[in-house]
Amino acid sequence: MAPSTPTKPSILAREDVARSNLFAIERLELRFSNGAERTFERLKGRGRPAVMIVAMPDPEHVLLIREYAAGFDEYALTLPKGLVDPGEDIITAGNRELMEECGMGARRIEPLVELSLAPNYMNHRMQVLLATDLYEKRLPGDEPEPLLVETHAIESLPALLAREDFHEARAIAALYIARDTLRAERDSESWW
Amino acid sequence: MAPSTPTKPSILAREDVARSNLFAIERLELRFSNGAERTFERLKGRGRPAVMIVAMPDPEHVLLIREYAAGFDEYALTLPKGLVDPGEDIITAGNRELMEECGMGARRIEPLVELSLAPNYMNHRMQVLLATDLYEKRLPGDEPEPLLVETHAIESLPALLAREDFHEARAIAALYIARDTLRAERDSESWW
Repeated sequence: MAPSTPTKPSILAREDVARSNLFAIERLELRFSNGAERTFERLKGRGRPAVMIVAMPDPEHVLLIREYAAGFDEYALTLPKGLVDPGEDIITAGNRELMEECGMGARRIEPLVELSLAPNYMNHRMQVLLATDLYEKRLPGDEPEPLLVETHAIESLPALLAREDFHEARAIAALYIARDTLRAERDSESWW
Repeated sequence: MAPSTPTKPSILAREDVARSNLFAIERLELRFSNGAERTFERLKGRGRPAVMIVAMPDPEHVLLIREYAAGFDEYALTLPKGLVDPGEDIITAGNRELMEECGMGARRIEPLVELSLAPNYMNHRMQVLLATDLYEKRLPGDEPEPLLVETHAIESLPALLAREDFHEARAIAALYIARDTLRAERDSESWW
């Protein structure tokens, strides 16, 4: 078997071991192709897709939100995001979340990248969208308190990383990818 | 209260609602400063710090591993990483994980950034280390099968992102930050 095509382990058994409103934990008994057996645990979300939005009011700036992060019991700076409602497509969900969390809609939204959180033990995936050509439009959301919206230069990522409240890997990855995508577009425009 | 200093919600009650070998789920009853009350759930890890290593065999290349990702039941390309053992510092842990997962040690390892996973509902933090001046050294790890190690140009991030098995947000964020840090060092050297 070539190293580029590993053989997946066999799942000998799987069992739900714990469940709450938000999470389900599953235990897997695995046999790897070399015969080694291991018990793994993985976390299953509720199966609804998630979206994260890089919303740019102009070609140099991006909207960030500051919201209460229960995992650390402190406020964190990140990108607007949320779950896709049943029957909703990801573009509509991204625009709705942007209206709820930032009070802005976007005339143009396009998929940028799909990110995973911790593929070794979670099945979570998030669609990152790039939203441009914004206009003011607020929808009521389910947030317990209004989110603080900050506008930052997308080229100021190093300064953002120096902040203690800016650490969420998905938001950081999304902003770097958006910045590089925009730089590449500018370079190709100035080339032509 | 200035928008830069939001008042944290009060935690009215907290309760462990589910537990497995790897995870513990806690329910929080919160009252926000505007009086709104909400029930949140958050996931607690086992409290051991985690490290992720950007290991560079030369100034242009980085080591990536391909390992079985149980969350998706498929192989994923990512950076070497692991938990800090009791009594270990993060530098020693990073070097040990590098020896176990890539068969390499590093004469120089330095902290690059600290990343969180999903601060809204997890308390997980990961220290990203930059490892350089590598040498061959293999330690036995607890992996069920040998990891596939791939060497990639750090400037090839757009090509990596086009791969279906490269999607982990922490690895992507770490590689962009390492690449920009190295670019900035090169620029300052050529300036002087």
